[in-house]
Amino acid sequence: MTNPNIKNILKKMDEKGYEGYLLNNFTNIGYISNYFPTSFAFCIIKEDPVIFVSKMDMEIAKNSSSIDIIEFESFSKMNELLKNEGISNLAIEPSLQVDTFKKLEKDFKCNVEEFVNLERMIKSQDEVSKITKATEISQKSFIELDILSNKNKTEVELAYELGKLMRFNGATKESFDTILSSGSNTSLPHSTPRNTPLKEPILVDWGVKYNHYCSDNTRTIVYTEKQFEIFDVVLEAHHKAIKAIKPGIKCCEVDKVARDIISDYGYKDNFIHSTGHSLGLDIHEAPNFSTKDDTVIEKDMVITVEPGIYLEDEFGVRIEDTIHIQNKGKIIGNLPHRIY
Amino acid sequence: MTNPNIKNILKKMDEKGYEGYLLNNFTNIGYISNYFPTSFAFCIIKEDPVIFVSKMDMEIAKNSSSIDIIEFESFSKMNELLKNEGISNLAIEPSLQVDTFKKLEKDFKCNVEEFVNLERMIKSQDEVSKITKATEISQKSFIELDILSNKNKTEVELAYELGKLMRFNGATKESFDTILSSGSNTSLPHSTPRNTPLKEPILVDWGVKYNHYCSDNTRTIVYTEKQFEIFDVVLEAHHKAIKAIKPGIKCCEVDKVARDIISDYGYKDNFIHSTGHSLGLDIHEAPNFSTKDDTVIEKDMVITVEPGIYLEDEFGVRIEDTIHIQNKGKIIGNLPHRIY
Repeated sequence: MTNPNIKNILKKMDEKGYEGYLLNNFTNIGYISNYFPTSFAFCIIKEDPVIFVSKMDMEIAKNSSSIDIIEFESFSKMNELLKNEGISNLAIEPSLQVDTFKKLEKDFKCNVEEFVNLERMIKSQDEVSKITKATEISQKSFIELDILSNKNKTEVELAYELGKLMRFNGATKESFDTILSSGSNTSLPHSTPRNTPLKEPILVDWGVKYNHYCSDNTRTIVYTEKQFEIFDVVLEAHHKAIKAIKPGIKCCEVDKVARDIISDYGYKDNFIHSTGHSLGLDIHEAPNFSTKDDTVIEKDMVITVEPGIYLEDEFGVRIEDTIHIQNKGKIIGNLPHRIY
Repeated sequence: MTNPNIKNILKKMDEKGYEGYLLNNFTNIGYISNYFPTSFAFCIIKEDPVIFVSKMDMEIAKNSSSIDIIEFESFSKMNELLKNEGISNLAIEPSLQVDTFKKLEKDFKCNVEEFVNLERMIKSQDEVSKITKATEISQKSFIELDILSNKNKTEVELAYELGKLMRFNGATKESFDTILSSGSNTSLPHSTPRNTPLKEPILVDWGVKYNHYCSDNTRTIVYTEKQFEIFDVVLEAHHKAIKAIKPGIKCCEVDKVARDIISDYGYKDNFIHSTGHSLGLDIHEAPNFSTKDDTVIEKDMVITVEPGIYLEDEFGVRIEDTIHIQNKGKIIGNLPHRIY
């Protein structure tokens, strides 16, 4: 057994009396084994960990997985095999589907545990390099997109052009559907690009996957006096939140710094989401810079800071960077915040 | 209450004594309301159906949903509201996460039901038109890609070029990550495009989303005598399975037609997946042409037929079309199977 993550998880399982831990989350299975399933798989962490996959994925799974692969035939056969190995207390993931849960519950005492998600909160040096490379690719591509010279194009065209540049610069794909909104649509945090020419302001929230790891940034290009005014408030919240970050304080304290600044300027009700989320193999991971998350910040967490102000039917501004936590918060990448 | 789908579901709920039905599946919520969530949402089907969304999505949800939107604040508040409306028996979806299930179980008697998934099995005329349009876009783009004249490009380049053509031809995006494999990698049903020049044979499994609806096709371009031999077996299985389709027979009977032909030629163990799956808003829906699915085929189901033979370390062949079931099985689109 060489994988240090599995070792840590086995230790935690042992402390709580679990003989097995069933992973259904494809990303968690990839994190543990380097096999990233696409259709169907369960990984059981135990003394000899295995991954059950469907017949059609046996070859690809064996080619990439660092742990053993078994063909999944049925729940009754899988459960029988695990029971024969002495498994009775089974840890399961919070994301397990309830219909699968009911098939396991018959044979095992099941409890939800977050062991792998907790493990993933702290990034290795290799993981940080991949996130950094992903960020470099996406920021380089954003500069090459040169929105200011292409304002005659539509939101859809520019979002697509950005995707093309990111792939040419080495990305596998987008880490999420690019948000490229303009005009009053910038007030919708989750808008979809439209087939209409750009209006002002312009908001782009984009990122790539590089070697399975995500990047995430947002920039807003503002024009009118009111837009600049809001921009400055958001940028102040963004800067001060990042400055507040250090190991030992709680995630919600960072959220509070950003939220208090925006509230002080009178926009409390217009900051309608959390200040940030972790990322890694997934674009959204724990912990979050949110009002309710009291996770204590640790070295080598990677968390976004992305305050925003949204004025319904008018416009919105969001500024987002990804922060690698060392002794203090270090911004990954070097893309300017003010784009003229 | 005008939505006929909701009416049908309310009737089924009533028959089984449910006062509410909680949908967590984003596609099902979109199917019911035309609001397709991207981050967090629960829809409760009841006399006055509502969708709970996070504060940040209130504006976009209200703009697109045909049913009422309420801000989600906490499970305790949501549960309280539902209990006050007299809900005690709650239907839930099989895809509900077990951690959410445990939060609902405290307050409601919960049972897994597939009402919406069952409703989605039969496509309306409008849905079939969208699937047809999606198929037309993806087949037109495949022809424009002209692989035979671009064999010097890599798998990644061609997959990307195809994505570009599909968007230019009107697609929103791919309905799944394009499989564009060549050489021995064609024996992996779920391979990922590589940064290496094309080898022979070439297998492309691709599709688009158009107005939320999916298309799905596979073509294999073969070269050697052995590849042609396998191709002909797969094509025979494909043709005969489609010919067997009619309302009233079971899905597994169609699978058996394809499987028997491939077995007769001696490749039983090399057909390592089901013969087909339904599609619509999702790329994989129920029912399936699989050995175990005894769903009776009905008019206006839309199901793929995609037999394949995979010779490990050598090559694979798969041929896939999407079938609209009328009095018999009608192929959507008109892309030739043999590509020279």
